[in-house]
Amino acid sequence: MRIGMLVSGGDCPGLNAAIRGAVLRGVDVFGFEMIGFMSGWRGVIENDWIPLDRRAVRGISPMGGTILGTSRVSPFTDEGGGAEGIRARMRENDLDGLILIGGNGTQTVAQMLSDEGINVVGVPKTIDNDLGGTDFTFGFDTAVSIATDAIDRLRTTGESHGRCMVLEVMGRDAGWIALHAGMAGGAQVILVPEFPESIEQICEWVESVRDRGRHSLVVVAEGFRLEGMESEVTRAGVDGFGRPRLGGVAEVLAPMIEERTGIESRATVLGHVQRGGVPTAFDRVLATRAGIAASDAVEAGDWGVMTSLQGNDIVTVPLAEAVGSLKVVPRDRYEQVRLLFG
Amino acid sequence: MRIGMLVSGGDCPGLNAAIRGAVLRGVDVFGFEMIGFMSGWRGVIENDWIPLDRRAVRGISPMGGTILGTSRVSPFTDEGGGAEGIRARMRENDLDGLILIGGNGTQTVAQMLSDEGINVVGVPKTIDNDLGGTDFTFGFDTAVSIATDAIDRLRTTGESHGRCMVLEVMGRDAGWIALHAGMAGGAQVILVPEFPESIEQICEWVESVRDRGRHSLVVVAEGFRLEGMESEVTRAGVDGFGRPRLGGVAEVLAPMIEERTGIESRATVLGHVQRGGVPTAFDRVLATRAGIAASDAVEAGDWGVMTSLQGNDIVTVPLAEAVGSLKVVPRDRYEQVRLLFG
Amino acid sequence: MRIGMLVSGGDCPGLNAAIRGAVLRGVDVFGFEMIGFMSGWRGVIENDWIPLDRRAVRGISPMGGTILGTSRVSPFTDEGGGAEGIRARMRENDLDGLILIGGNGTQTVAQMLSDEGINVVGVPKTIDNDLGGTDFTFGFDTAVSIATDAIDRLRTTGESHGRCMVLEVMGRDAGWIALHAGMAGGAQVILVPEFPESIEQICEWVESVRDRGRHSLVVVAEGFRLEGMESEVTRAGVDGFGRPRLGGVAEVLAPMIEERTGIESRATVLGHVQRGGVPTAFDRVLATRAGIAASDAVEAGDWGVMTSLQGNDIVTVPLAEAVGSLKVVPRDRYEQVRLLFG
Amino acid sequence: MRIGMLVSGGDCPGLNAAIRGAVLRGVDVFGFEMIGFMSGWRGVIENDWIPLDRRAVRGISPMGGTILGTSRVSPFTDEGGGAEGIRARMRENDLDGLILIGGNGTQTVAQMLSDEGINVVGVPKTIDNDLGGTDFTFGFDTAVSIATDAIDRLRTTGESHGRCMVLEVMGRDAGWIALHAGMAGGAQVILVPEFPESIEQICEWVESVRDRGRHSLVVVAEGFRLEGMESEVTRAGVDGFGRPRLGGVAEVLAPMIEERTGIESRATVLGHVQRGGVPTAFDRVLATRAGIAASDAVEAGDWGVMTSLQGNDIVTVPLAEAVGSLKVVPRDRYEQVRLLFG
Repeated sequence: MRIGMLVSGGDCPGLNAAIRGAVLRGVDVFGFEMIGFMSGWRGVIENDWIPLDRRAVRGISPMGGTILGTSRVSPFTDEGGGAEGIRARMRENDLDGLILIGGNGTQTVAQMLSDEGINVVGVPKTIDNDLGGTDFTFGFDTAVSIATDAIDRLRTTGESHGRCMVLEVMGRDAGWIALHAGMAGGAQVILVPEFPESIEQICEWVESVRDRGRHSLVVVAEGFRLEGMESEVTRAGVDGFGRPRLGGVAEVLAPMIEERTGIESRATVLGHVQRGGVPTAFDRVLATRAGIAASDAVEAGDWGVMTSLQGNDIVTVPLAEAVGSLKVVPRDRYEQVRLLFG
Repeated sequence: MRIGMLVSGGDCPGLNAAIRGAVLRGVDVFGFEMIGFMSGWRGVIENDWIPLDRRAVRGISPMGGTILGTSRVSPFTDEGGGAEGIRARMRENDLDGLILIGGNGTQTVAQMLSDEGINVVGVPKTIDNDLGGTDFTFGFDTAVSIATDAIDRLRTTGESHGRCMVLEVMGRDAGWIALHAGMAGGAQVILVPEFPESIEQICEWVESVRDRGRHSLVVVAEGFRLEGMESEVTRAGVDGFGRPRLGGVAEVLAPMIEERTGIESRATVLGHVQRGGVPTAFDRVLATRAGIAASDAVEAGDWGVMTSLQGNDIVTVPLAEAVGSLKVVPRDRYEQVRLLFG
Repeated sequence: MRIGMLVSGGDCPGLNAAIRGAVLRGVDVFGFEMIGFMSGWRGVIENDWIPLDRRAVRGISPMGGTILGTSRVSPFTDEGGGAEGIRARMRENDLDGLILIGGNGTQTVAQMLSDEGINVVGVPKTIDNDLGGTDFTFGFDTAVSIATDAIDRLRTTGESHGRCMVLEVMGRDAGWIALHAGMAGGAQVILVPEFPESIEQICEWVESVRDRGRHSLVVVAEGFRLEGMESEVTRAGVDGFGRPRLGGVAEVLAPMIEERTGIESRATVLGHVQRGGVPTAFDRVLATRAGIAASDAVEAGDWGVMTSLQGNDIVTVPLAEAVGSLKVVPRDRYEQVRLLFG
Repeated sequence: MRIGMLVSGGDCPGLNAAIRGAVLRGVDVFGFEMIGFMSGWRGVIENDWIPLDRRAVRGISPMGGTILGTSRVSPFTDEGGGAEGIRARMRENDLDGLILIGGNGTQTVAQMLSDEGINVVGVPKTIDNDLGGTDFTFGFDTAVSIATDAIDRLRTTGESHGRCMVLEVMGRDAGWIALHAGMAGGAQVILVPEFPESIEQICEWVESVRDRGRHSLVVVAEGFRLEGMESEVTRAGVDGFGRPRLGGVAEVLAPMIEERTGIESRATVLGHVQRGGVPTAFDRVLATRAGIAASDAVEAGDWGVMTSLQGNDIVTVPLAEAVGSLKVVPRDRYEQVRLLFG
């Protein structure tokens, strides 16, 4: 059995542990030959790959990023040649199947290739945790951990200066990072893309916190939008005042809060630090298990599936079930924390 | 509704977040009055308690330990007066029910009290993650995280000096911490209480790692015992050489490995640092949700249950289902990592 | 002896350890009575203070921020009443002297009060490390540590995606944080306020890094300005393209680098997280020693001085020597790292 | 100019940053050729080395351990051949000089070689910070940081359970780690090798802490000995009760404290985790600067010296001044913290 592996889409902590898990299981236990395409689909298109064996994955589990590199290149382009192009490249390299590590986009591609009869196993990865068909994806726990650390730090400054601190975290379509980091850090206000709130409501919460003698920590997902504002506007690089947005939604909210409440407010946009560096132990374990499970699926001839965490177990689910549906914060989880604000 | 809360057994990261979650939900949302007994059942026996409100739990979520203190005192003693004594104390303080935060022992007591008609809700907590009826308990993720950090540090020393490093982590009856930290840190050998191994087998693994040009990191749960040795011996404070054991199993293993393989070996016993300090974001979220769910159960009159993480959801399970069964590392999880050693 | 203490200016990690050191030494060893004014000079003006004893400072050493709060209020205002107003307030509270914890501005005020015959001892504190008369100030090591952690994280993303990552750190007039974090994190380009560079030079460095097969990490102090650009322009909220600056200099540089080199570039502005949260051990020791030294100076009647780290020793220096001079990165330190870029 | 480099003695955080600093400066700026001997003097004896250039040191600054490995092998053995043997090996490899990274022992060897006319530059490195001639050595700050983190964690358990926690840290002859970590973590009792104390005095402190309603955190350096006990006894592997010592001094002290005060006491021996893993930013900067300074000394022909931190500056001092004197905790620094115990 000869297997190709690649990472596609944004990088996230745990990718190397997943690669290592798949290789140790596949090469050492099952006797696969494995190769890794460099920079995602670009490596497939350009036939740029490295052999993957025990030596290649030695000690990489605690490292951020990915030894294979990644890109946002899609195979469904003229250059990529679609399913036919991929199939040709696989034949050329004598590959029996592909392990595809990536997020929503990548798993959708995986399913399309599977529909065309190509042997694929998907390994899910999202910082935002918005992928259906699995309890958690690796990368998310590290991102929440970094965001929580930032809240812990900002809080002391907020309390010392009597300021409202607004922290923007990742989460374009789903607010999981904001929800979890906000709960972990004890944020007084948590704003997620799923549930728009008005600026009046936000200021009411901030003022109610002040009336209790404290200072608000507002955590806001990048994809949050103010109620009544056009999402196209706030998302398209123009802020709530119509000015071009260089920064993020936190940089829009902080001055609005300060103007309306008179409470000095400061924005911090956490940005790229959320997706890099040493993964948490949780993410390393999850990623290692996901990698192992991918090689197990290959060995079992269980193609067209994605590895999935369900409770304590790693199982496989059909790609068709996993892709397409965005896993968003349900109303009851949001209401639960919302009730704590007042 | 007037509710008492206490923590019993060993402390662990997340206790304060659980207390805070229950109080913010119970007092602020449902209008309970809540009190916290100090130092576990000792506080009940001595009627030593503090009122719990929003102010009392302010900012405690990132703190290790517990603001209520804890002890290993049991109510089923002459002093405690058993169910009748507890009932009397509850009447005296006008309490409608108790929220009991603790591990296996505490939840067993909870069930006994429930059987006697006392209103209790259990919140599970174990460092070792060996409690049935729930996917994870808070405290475990922090312990794994600290143990993984230690592995990351020891590895560099092992590689620089060409040594075999043996790290002992918590896990008296279940090897979850060793399993997860070992996977996260890329330990070459993982030894758990569930699966005794012989010293010959261990040395074979260590030598096979050396033959690949690397240096072994052995992670061993405190409850691991060598195959062929009486568990009473290795567990009762006498080491494998018949000497009194001041340290732990790592201090027995390291010299045995060195003697048989000729590879310089060093033991580290991680000990109490695993159970203290700032909880991980994961544990804070889990603990907060568990606390919230406990107050939800109280509000719903759902007595005799324990909060439980199942996948992404916090549910309640009957105490009878949760207690009594130890959740151990299943053979397939162990075999999976064992195959990676050779 | 009865002593007042306050914190003025921006908060930074270590303030609580300094307060604790001064109190444990002053109250417990020398028998002082001590009080702490709240929110800096505002507390003096409004006579808002708390008693400071062992209990008040219990366990605060690892905490960020300050239990006394802080503000940028100056005593040299109508409201403050200048030296006379301060003197009156001290008489009212029966104070023999003041311990003033703060940065350049605060120590300048301290000297002015000292010149007016008021008993003061200064304790220096700056994130930026730009205060003369002392090797280091507490807060700086924590800020460098946080910035280095961010570089470690950003680097993995940069390498995985083949991007140039631009990180903006604190440092308005002095580039110490950028210099040290850049050295610690192995940044390929380090830009400081003391030494303007042209965009051509920066891009040459970035391209030379690419030619070596790597991806640049550029760390830039917030006060850096491009050579040939008016400092008023880049500092006054207008970016290099003449657009209003909402973010910082990193958000100006990244698109300029991308445009000229064709290398995808991303900006991160670290912001307030650099000044909050748990202090490093180094800062806690330095702050504790500075606090102790302040009470020593009070006991010795050594007024009009500032505590100062010189090598391994904490000494006192006359305030006149310490204030007024900005400690900037010397040319040879900068040249040393600059030579490594090419 | 062709230069050999090696690391000798115990590993410590910062070694890789020092190697990298010397190489980037020496090879890229001055045009040296550089080689690194593997595993200390063993590599010289066996002529086992690797070429050192920019590629070899890429990205190693944040890594613990050393890419060159280390050992405790001495050149002054039959095998090593003493100065003549080293000289012969240098001639064979066409080496003009050696950069020797190590602690007291290594720098003493460096001086002996220098006395024999061999060109050497020493780079000091000790975890214990007990080397004369320099304010700090890299490795120390990381060790203090790890020990402080352990104190922070143990404290919460001690407070929750009402226990006295005894933490043993490194420091065979000098108590710097105990002193600094103890100050940073707010330990109530700090015990160092330089100042023996009686068990009665220690228990008096622990009881006085209890009388104030708190629970003691005792930090003890491994080299501490009880007053009145023979150092040979407590140091030679026999504990205060005459039993063989498997663990360290903390495991002797904890039961003695518990027996005399009735306060439940627990020992933790931090051990090897103190010397491994990611270095603090402080240590990386110090190590990088030391490495740069070593190549500067080579370029200047400034042989027979050791790099040294003095205040903010890295200078060189004659090896003769640096070696031989142990830098111990001075009485006034110890008295200062001792006064805080009572």
